[in-house]
Amino acid sequence: MTDTIPTTGTRTGYLDRHGVEHPFGDAEAERQVRSDDRAHVFHSWSAQAKIDPLPIAAGEGSTFWDYEGNAYLDFSSQLVNLNLGHQHPDLVAAIQQQAGRLATVQPSMANDVRGELARRIAEVAPGTLNKVFFTNGGADANEYAVRLARRVTGRRKVLSMYRSYHGGTSTAIALTGDPRRWANEPSDPSVAHFFGPYPYRSAFHSTSPEEETQRALEHLENVIVLEGAGTIAALIAETVVGTNGVLVPPPGYLAGVRELCDRYGIVYIADEVMVGFGRVGEWFAVDAFDVVPDLITFAKGVNSGYVPLGGVVISDAIAAQFDDVAFQGGLTYSGHPLACAAGVATFDVFDRDGILDRVRDLGSRVVEPELRSWLERHPSLGEVRGRGLFWALELVRDRETREPLVPFNAAGPDAAPMAEVAAACKAAGVWPFTHFNRVHVAPPLVIGEDELRRGLAAIDAALDVADRYARA
Amino acid sequence: MTDTIPTTGTRTGYLDRHGVEHPFGDAEAERQVRSDDRAHVFHSWSAQAKIDPLPIAAGEGSTFWDYEGNAYLDFSSQLVNLNLGHQHPDLVAAIQQQAGRLATVQPSMANDVRGELARRIAEVAPGTLNKVFFTNGGADANEYAVRLARRVTGRRKVLSMYRSYHGGTSTAIALTGDPRRWANEPSDPSVAHFFGPYPYRSAFHSTSPEEETQRALEHLENVIVLEGAGTIAALIAETVVGTNGVLVPPPGYLAGVRELCDRYGIVYIADEVMVGFGRVGEWFAVDAFDVVPDLITFAKGVNSGYVPLGGVVISDAIAAQFDDVAFQGGLTYSGHPLACAAGVATFDVFDRDGILDRVRDLGSRVVEPELRSWLERHPSLGEVRGRGLFWALELVRDRETREPLVPFNAAGPDAAPMAEVAAACKAAGVWPFTHFNRVHVAPPLVIGEDELRRGLAAIDAALDVADRYARA
Repeated sequence: MTDTIPTTGTRTGYLDRHGVEHPFGDAEAERQVRSDDRAHVFHSWSAQAKIDPLPIAAGEGSTFWDYEGNAYLDFSSQLVNLNLGHQHPDLVAAIQQQAGRLATVQPSMANDVRGELARRIAEVAPGTLNKVFFTNGGADANEYAVRLARRVTGRRKVLSMYRSYHGGTSTAIALTGDPRRWANEPSDPSVAHFFGPYPYRSAFHSTSPEEETQRALEHLENVIVLEGAGTIAALIAETVVGTNGVLVPPPGYLAGVRELCDRYGIVYIADEVMVGFGRVGEWFAVDAFDVVPDLITFAKGVNSGYVPLGGVVISDAIAAQFDDVAFQGGLTYSGHPLACAAGVATFDVFDRDGILDRVRDLGSRVVEPELRSWLERHPSLGEVRGRGLFWALELVRDRETREPLVPFNAAGPDAAPMAEVAAACKAAGVWPFTHFNRVHVAPPLVIGEDELRRGLAAIDAALDVADRYARA
Repeated sequence: MTDTIPTTGTRTGYLDRHGVEHPFGDAEAERQVRSDDRAHVFHSWSAQAKIDPLPIAAGEGSTFWDYEGNAYLDFSSQLVNLNLGHQHPDLVAAIQQQAGRLATVQPSMANDVRGELARRIAEVAPGTLNKVFFTNGGADANEYAVRLARRVTGRRKVLSMYRSYHGGTSTAIALTGDPRRWANEPSDPSVAHFFGPYPYRSAFHSTSPEEETQRALEHLENVIVLEGAGTIAALIAETVVGTNGVLVPPPGYLAGVRELCDRYGIVYIADEVMVGFGRVGEWFAVDAFDVVPDLITFAKGVNSGYVPLGGVVISDAIAAQFDDVAFQGGLTYSGHPLACAAGVATFDVFDRDGILDRVRDLGSRVVEPELRSWLERHPSLGEVRGRGLFWALELVRDRETREPLVPFNAAGPDAAPMAEVAAACKAAGVWPFTHFNRVHVAPPLVIGEDELRRGLAAIDAALDVADRYARA
């Protein structure tokens, strides 16, 4: 297997927006970026006066640099979107080429790269999922998936999991099963939440993955019956729950979900915004579990987020319902050619460089054994779980009680131990993804094996910080 | 004034996605585009089996071409987003440059072009609107504007106009005051609609613009009082209503809206997704009416839609409410560097080429007198209205009764007269924007005067078709 992205970390400068090269350490340039940002940029999910966003000067492969020239291995792939890493030459070339020929056309026209990307997605999508409705990102993909389900069923309610994230717009945030929803209620009132499987912290008092599957499905069926099957349009679930913990479904769970949806006439929506396009070593994560949803939503990895893009892959049966009746939804940038060109290039790179094989190999040969070996050395490490290049380290104060290292949704001083772990990673040149009491491992899929081992070593060392809070 | 975009219409071919030039008339390439599109692309607002999307091969300035080589003057600027026309060399260069240096970074970091675009927007925004929350498009911009208003007021209801469009996601479609909302209800239940001014078809039986303003404001105050001022978080209005008719507010109306919002503690959101960034000859259309909203939403013209981008410009007073308390909203692609770079280039072009002056000049010297002169010749022309390069021709069967040429929301045979008008425009090489009984004139702001006159002549001729349905 060839690494198409060389090991990085040797850059000495960055390009400004006029293409002029500058050495790192340009304090005036950094000051201008900070000044504009602090004065004029309103940031997501933040108290604006309490943040100090790091100005980023450059990126390449698995590494990005600040203006001082500090290099960070990007173990969060930005927001788990940069599947092909920073500045992948093929994606850059595809964007530059498309920008030079036809940056955009409206959705009602036909466009070559839009059609090609839709075809290539259909080719790798499971079952009869053959049509694609393109959106700008994951949130609107989920909004439109729900809308499709509501129209074809004539029902309104949607079931979604606690411990989930489905996006920021009105219906998407209502689907969400984490604290980001709380401050945004009421939004879409037709959502009910259920518990998914989570063997390490079972909501069902189960003692094995098999029992967790069986009890979680029994719980789900209870919810369906008590909510009224005839009121439920759709069930939406992240195939592997992402931000809320890299929760890989135990054997048989998703097949059981599919079976319940079939039995009760419910549309099964798989949210693969974070885990589609190679993150777990599959085009779509459902392939790892042999299930075929009715709708799959995607974004992020489809083009590594180089250009905003998301969408819904639609089964023939659902698409056919809109052959003669208009689909009541749309957006100006649906099927944006520049975004789609970067998506087509993503398929070319995946095919040529065997990205899926690479992810499976690095995940099973490097990451999994390494992380599991830490269980022997780090008393703060409660559980390791994941698949491909998507892993979670669940940190605890006590392995017996499984008390989390920091409380659920902790902020301020309560969250200090996790802040210290993150700071230790950054000091060692690794940018981690942390959430509540977890560190996630989600590097670009093109990361070199040496980089991967170096980043893991830094996280290993940072766990010493967590160990100080843990009862051995 | 220099035309930086030359008069076009002389291309003989197009570039494929590998950069290879092909002559027009390549039937096999066109067949492939159609085949992929029909098999795999699910289109916005359409019955999928009833559409036949035109494959587009190339665009330049105010013109685009199909695969057969037919050139169309783009009098709808795609979806009224292509303010700087197709393939503007400065925007293309900015995208190519940014793609080559840093395609994307996550929202929590600081980025030079993100900060610069926010600063430049703040510099031209009215009043104390100094911070920008970036989104992917207009729909989510409106969603987040409403969320900001709800948080700062502690209230929930939003007032919006009948005859409006605010986007496709859940809250945005609820705000919408046209038929695209109907099939998507219930969505956000906390929306109430009111009537805005529309002198030609007054909801208030007024007989002059002044009377329309006075009565529309009286109506609005009645709605506020009867809905309960203390329940109302925000009022959202397109500064010039777009798709629903290029409804330019009569003198004093928006100042009255501002005054009512102040009196009742309501956040005033100006939706400038379609009319911001030069469409009516102002950076923001509110500048033409001397009012300062609390929030302005934008998308489309900010970078001509070359890369998906939208946002909310936020007043200091509202932004300050989130200095110490987190804003509960966000998205992966907020402040996307590639999109922002195209926005910065847009500012450079507007400044260098005097785009605002150009729009005012072409609008008042060429478009307005030309359209008004048609009133003498076309019995089907009920009213002409607009500003800058944004105009509507309201077509009627009878000037006395003002019966529309086709009924409101007509489809199929009922809509035939308008379909014939559109077909006549296209046959003459002009791609029009039509909606219900109206033809809109919304060409790129960089259109050459000769192109503009040629396109208007084609529409003039196409109105002969409408005249056949009109009682003289």
